[in-house]
Amino acid sequence: MHHYAAAMSVRGGIDLGGTKIQTVVVDDDNRVLGEARHPTPTEGGPADVAAAMATAIGEAAGAAGVATSELAGVGVGSPGAIDAAAGTVGQARNLPDWEGVFPLADAISRAIGGVTVKLGNDVSVATDAEVQLGAGVGARSLLGVFWGTGVGGGVILDGVRWDGEGAAGEIGHMVVKQGGRKCPCGRHGCMEAYAGRGAMEATARKRHEAGEKTDLFHLMKKHDRPRLTSGIWSRALAAGDRLATEIVDEAVEALGTGVASAVNLLDVEVVLIGGGLGLRLGEEYRDRILAAMMPHLFNDDRPPAVRLAALGDLGGAVGAALLVA
Amino acid sequence: MHHYAAAMSVRGGIDLGGTKIQTVVVDDDNRVLGEARHPTPTEGGPADVAAAMATAIGEAAGAAGVATSELAGVGVGSPGAIDAAAGTVGQARNLPDWEGVFPLADAISRAIGGVTVKLGNDVSVATDAEVQLGAGVGARSLLGVFWGTGVGGGVILDGVRWDGEGAAGEIGHMVVKQGGRKCPCGRHGCMEAYAGRGAMEATARKRHEAGEKTDLFHLMKKHDRPRLTSGIWSRALAAGDRLATEIVDEAVEALGTGVASAVNLLDVEVVLIGGGLGLRLGEEYRDRILAAMMPHLFNDDRPPAVRLAALGDLGGAVGAALLVA
Repeated sequence: MHHYAAAMSVRGGIDLGGTKIQTVVVDDDNRVLGEARHPTPTEGGPADVAAAMATAIGEAAGAAGVATSELAGVGVGSPGAIDAAAGTVGQARNLPDWEGVFPLADAISRAIGGVTVKLGNDVSVATDAEVQLGAGVGARSLLGVFWGTGVGGGVILDGVRWDGEGAAGEIGHMVVKQGGRKCPCGRHGCMEAYAGRGAMEATARKRHEAGEKTDLFHLMKKHDRPRLTSGIWSRALAAGDRLATEIVDEAVEALGTGVASAVNLLDVEVVLIGGGLGLRLGEEYRDRILAAMMPHLFNDDRPPAVRLAALGDLGGAVGAALLVA
Repeated sequence: MHHYAAAMSVRGGIDLGGTKIQTVVVDDDNRVLGEARHPTPTEGGPADVAAAMATAIGEAAGAAGVATSELAGVGVGSPGAIDAAAGTVGQARNLPDWEGVFPLADAISRAIGGVTVKLGNDVSVATDAEVQLGAGVGARSLLGVFWGTGVGGGVILDGVRWDGEGAAGEIGHMVVKQGGRKCPCGRHGCMEAYAGRGAMEATARKRHEAGEKTDLFHLMKKHDRPRLTSGIWSRALAAGDRLATEIVDEAVEALGTGVASAVNLLDVEVVLIGGGLGLRLGEEYRDRILAAMMPHLFNDDRPPAVRLAALGDLGGAVGAALLVA
């Protein structure tokens, strides 16, 4: 019975980001049978986000030709403070009105016919996906660097995720500059204060309001985006926008410094670059991050392999589906 | 036969530092039966250092009432690039004329009647000693911070040392300030550039030569020291020496920043402060390092336990003896 069911099962995965909700439905070999993407609600509260997530997984199921009630389970990769056992998410700063603790697993499960929903940390599941299925396959040790709205980190040692006392991997809050720029987290000099897309937008806005020229906000309006997305940054860079170039250069410098610090501490075999900005900017910026690491690497005669995440935009959702494998 | 021999064995341990050679002879319960300490030769070359190490382990054996030939083995904790299998040490920057590769294990072994000599990294063996016998007993995960001539780090995860691809733990070369002060390693902004005793002495000398008042170099001469030892720094601080206070304050700030970064990445249970300066400055500075970590800790509601190394000055040598246990 168990084997029969396992051979038949299809599973759902939801990657809940500050900008978008990406869903997939996969088979036993983690092949994507259907997918859907919705913008994350910017207004309302956790219940509205949960409803949008249920809709999006429903669409992925439809694309895969199954009903949501046929899913063997749905995994969710979420930001914020996850209590996997309780099925709750708290303090999700990048989501609307989500300071408190919300029973996300139950809310989604009720909306999709009682299917089991399991929660995990967004960065952790994305890292696991790359290690099990993507650019990290076979790596003894790996540092995942997810360059997006924030900068998340996943640590894999001896092939297994290292969680420490529960919250390891906060690479975005490694300090790259004592007394440096204020981070969205409220501290000073964190890598994320220079390299997180949220912080980069705040810097761009401040400098633009102080009189510096940039096409960033014009592009944002033109493409009808509520914020400076990875695509907007990419377009501005391609057009040679000076402010955008300077801010991205600072981000690369901070990433190189912070990742090199992490490598000096852990001496991992592989560094994996993912996240919205990391994937969008691609190979060229992978190379630039490695170049920015070099002056700070203690063992610069054998730098780690620096690779782009192989599962692309779907990595988080595929990793979430692994939670119910 | 094996158990009989084991029950009888006494072992030697040598901690080779840039300033001193500390030796111990221990029994099966790692109780110290005898010890000796010699200054590390500042002239000559590796062969002279090996001879001084042999002499010092001979003295420890004598103090323990055994001949060196009766030792079941001798472990050595050394700086530089260790090849444990080959028994060689290379690139030991803080030791005289030791840029090349020297067969240290054989050289010592020949001088003490053919007893087996095993080499290990100085910081690694000191960390292992604290975990097995000292302040780290029972810790699930631990970061050892050895604040001395340089700043060394030992990483213990799930109770086992993490070596990465062979050189993990270079916490002293985590960057605390992008574009910051030049480190003795040649890079910029490393924690060690502010907190290593070698770098601190260089800073003090430069500022003194530029006209700033300090009693540091007077104390050094008065106590007949070839360099600013931990004891000299401690005396200057106690006397309220302004330059010494400022330089140590910078060191504490850099340690707090770098250690917090490491904790944000690894979320360890325990941080252990050792090394010559760490042990000399003691509880007060342990507290100050924790205070300097707090503004940078991502999970500042549950900071790691910060403890002083419990084995004191003998920790490195006792840890070295564990190599032949």
